[in-house]
Amino acid sequence: MVSSGEGVRTLTAADIAAAVNGEVRGDPTARVGSVAPLYRAGASDLTFLATPRYAPLLASRTPGVLLVSPALADTPGQPACRVVVEKPQEALLSLLPLLYRQPPRVPGIHATAVIGWGAEIGEDVSIGPYAVVGRQARIGNGVTIDAHVVLGDGVVVGRHCHLLPHVTVYAGSSLGDRVIAHSGVRIGADGYGYVFADGAHQKIPHVGRCVIHDDVEIGANTTIDRGSIDDTVIGAGTKIDNLVQVGHNVRIGKLCLIMSQVGLAGSVRVGDGCILAGQVGVSGHLEIGDGARVGAQGGVIGDIPPGETWSGYPARPHRESLRASAALLKLAGMMKRLERMLSERE
Amino acid sequence: MVSSGEGVRTLTAADIAAAVNGEVRGDPTARVGSVAPLYRAGASDLTFLATPRYAPLLASRTPGVLLVSPALADTPGQPACRVVVEKPQEALLSLLPLLYRQPPRVPGIHATAVIGWGAEIGEDVSIGPYAVVGRQARIGNGVTIDAHVVLGDGVVVGRHCHLLPHVTVYAGSSLGDRVIAHSGVRIGADGYGYVFADGAHQKIPHVGRCVIHDDVEIGANTTIDRGSIDDTVIGAGTKIDNLVQVGHNVRIGKLCLIMSQVGLAGSVRVGDGCILAGQVGVSGHLEIGDGARVGAQGGVIGDIPPGETWSGYPARPHRESLRASAALLKLAGMMKRLERMLSERE
Amino acid sequence: MVSSGEGVRTLTAADIAAAVNGEVRGDPTARVGSVAPLYRAGASDLTFLATPRYAPLLASRTPGVLLVSPALADTPGQPACRVVVEKPQEALLSLLPLLYRQPPRVPGIHATAVIGWGAEIGEDVSIGPYAVVGRQARIGNGVTIDAHVVLGDGVVVGRHCHLLPHVTVYAGSSLGDRVIAHSGVRIGADGYGYVFADGAHQKIPHVGRCVIHDDVEIGANTTIDRGSIDDTVIGAGTKIDNLVQVGHNVRIGKLCLIMSQVGLAGSVRVGDGCILAGQVGVSGHLEIGDGARVGAQGGVIGDIPPGETWSGYPARPHRESLRASAALLKLAGMMKRLERMLSERE
Repeated sequence: MVSSGEGVRTLTAADIAAAVNGEVRGDPTARVGSVAPLYRAGASDLTFLATPRYAPLLASRTPGVLLVSPALADTPGQPACRVVVEKPQEALLSLLPLLYRQPPRVPGIHATAVIGWGAEIGEDVSIGPYAVVGRQARIGNGVTIDAHVVLGDGVVVGRHCHLLPHVTVYAGSSLGDRVIAHSGVRIGADGYGYVFADGAHQKIPHVGRCVIHDDVEIGANTTIDRGSIDDTVIGAGTKIDNLVQVGHNVRIGKLCLIMSQVGLAGSVRVGDGCILAGQVGVSGHLEIGDGARVGAQGGVIGDIPPGETWSGYPARPHRESLRASAALLKLAGMMKRLERMLSERE
Repeated sequence: MVSSGEGVRTLTAADIAAAVNGEVRGDPTARVGSVAPLYRAGASDLTFLATPRYAPLLASRTPGVLLVSPALADTPGQPACRVVVEKPQEALLSLLPLLYRQPPRVPGIHATAVIGWGAEIGEDVSIGPYAVVGRQARIGNGVTIDAHVVLGDGVVVGRHCHLLPHVTVYAGSSLGDRVIAHSGVRIGADGYGYVFADGAHQKIPHVGRCVIHDDVEIGANTTIDRGSIDDTVIGAGTKIDNLVQVGHNVRIGKLCLIMSQVGLAGSVRVGDGCILAGQVGVSGHLEIGDGARVGAQGGVIGDIPPGETWSGYPARPHRESLRASAALLKLAGMMKRLERMLSERE
Repeated sequence: MVSSGEGVRTLTAADIAAAVNGEVRGDPTARVGSVAPLYRAGASDLTFLATPRYAPLLASRTPGVLLVSPALADTPGQPACRVVVEKPQEALLSLLPLLYRQPPRVPGIHATAVIGWGAEIGEDVSIGPYAVVGRQARIGNGVTIDAHVVLGDGVVVGRHCHLLPHVTVYAGSSLGDRVIAHSGVRIGADGYGYVFADGAHQKIPHVGRCVIHDDVEIGANTTIDRGSIDDTVIGAGTKIDNLVQVGHNVRIGKLCLIMSQVGLAGSVRVGDGCILAGQVGVSGHLEIGDGARVGAQGGVIGDIPPGETWSGYPARPHRESLRASAALLKLAGMMKRLERMLSERE
């Protein structure tokens, strides 16, 4: 492995084969410095071929090194150097950190950051320009706080978290270790709660917390409200995509995948290991059992038992949704005959 | 009521009964300092029991003081001290401001705030670090502008508003009194309007305003576009949740509830007192009558008369939507028999 | 045309007729200084009448100058001065830049902007307060970067772009010429990609770029992720509305219209000239052909051929969706009779 100036690294085919436990076919000194998809890979690129669908591209592309599955290792084509490995795509992912360095971190507190009275800042922390850290906030070791992040009073940030530019964490929130919050994430805003009295929607004070456990990643511009009386809680290892809405008092379990633009109304409970696909909506106070899945755009208006896959609006077991969709399509085609039969008969 | 240092307050059962007009059963000197839901309330917590569903929890929890409805006042269980009151949950909400102080406000303009030429700032205003106030903006008495808020030139902010971190208000916008805009709200961005000419989508200049009336609350990362020629207007007392989109020239009436991720296309009119549930979409130029409601994920493609409740896609009167859903489910179960009957007959 | 101090301009009816190639009926010296919709236009306002629907308003309103189509030019009513023109609304749009000046641009770099080492800044660039420009970023001539914009290391911004307050552009992104990004846009965040291994969702490193071509406009709080290995690409002249999600590796062609709250999952391909209406969702890896359209809230779970219009969930050709909706409504009304017939028969 060669690491030249300016952050560029290169790998030889031999380096690659050693790293992924693969077998070199061709020149083991062939050298690549970047990764590209096969359709535009050039002589200095590492790429991969895992399905026959893209095999014809080899006729026209000459990547520097091709990771290829055993079944496709003999595909005719140009590249002089192939590394045969069981799972080429996973092998590629494991090589990325070797070729691409993380952008350099600059530990230290930028001169323009505003640090509140009584804040405790751990070791090896990086705080960027114009960040604002509230009074008595606590920031763990190895945390990176990018430019323009705003942390409220008393916020707790665990170790090795990364808050990207323009993140807001309201007072009353705490983050575990290794949490990543992408740009524009809002953690701990007041939930949507009002009582109608005296001719107006009276705001319910929100005194619950927003608790994000270890290893959670939160996508850009996602909003997670604080609890009203209870807390809002995101379980360890759960990954949330962009533009998701998590209402007050929601509890999401461990290791869930919550995809883009999902909306969870107040007090929803999501078990461990659930998958909610894009644009799913879940009505208030419902319970999604452990390991359940909901298909894209599903509208959930009742509890979902553990382990089941639901879809559609209103969401039903996926098999039922499919049957209903199929029946509806058929119905449209036979409606005239049905109407005729009914009218003749009656 | 005792207010010790550091912002902690406590209340005795007698204080509580007096505040909510309830009756103490047990030790009137029992003292609480915080609020928690029943399932995790401890000896220093105030909590409530309003439905039999949660009554069994009393067997294992011992809250400091329990607010309880008359019907459930004699539920067997541990807590030594109960306060009997007609509506325990509402009573609890009314006690929150007594137990939890608002975070301290620091009136004054932070040294790092950039105040544009000719801006008029009222009395008792708080402007946080790195806020940017445009030229000739006018900010009323008692306003709180948090860190990193950006106000365009000439923006008007009424009295006692609170703009949370990272809010943007474009030039050409005005806010009434007591408006709350949560973190990441964008008020007054150009609407989505183009005319196709000369082989491109030509941008329509937006010269209308964005007018937010008194007592509106706007959730995190919600976007409200300015008008193109006419204005975009949000009526007094309307509450908008997170991640909502309000298009150009939209007019929303008074006292509406617009829930999370709703999208209102350009020039939609929403009457007074309407409720749009989560993820509802309304197509351009439609009219939602006063007091109408739309169920979650409803897709509105036609006007809705006043007072009606609609749902589904395309949205229809809710009763019709339910009937259609039920019919579809039945249809899937009888499709084979229907097909057989039709084929035998013809 | 008169341009007085303070940015106010006025036009006479004669100026207007000359600019739009129209014919004055009434006093050619009548003078207007602003534009308003007919229902509230006053003596100093220019407005228009293009459809008979709004003609009755002329009985009560007296705009300064009325742009009116030939067919409606003789509508009875008050306004003393009319300018007859073929397409009154388009004429109005073309007059807006004459009446409303762009807010004054202040070229130069604000004293509080943080400019990274090695950044190249073009001529006539305006950089606002608290903007942060990464190391070795390149910013073209005539660019406007508003307050609180954060550009990552090495970001490229073409000529005459306008980035509004609080925009974030991550490292690894490049923008063409004349790109407009509204407040809160996030360009180039890591996509949502994980591999489940060792009992956790392991993050896939994202090393692809995010490439925005010329003349793209991006609405407030929209998120466009960078590619994982390949790039995310938005084609020239495409216009994206507010709160849209564009996943990693997505490619959108030229001149598309992507409306509010649309979600495109990873690796979706959208051709040239497509229109995706509000809240549409497209599942991963699908292909939308050139010129295709999808109706509001459509849920796309299969490829769409070029030029077709689809709608509904699951999305189907629009005509089929309409037929299915109509059949379903009828079905609900005839379900009882169908059930009776089936039971009698069997």
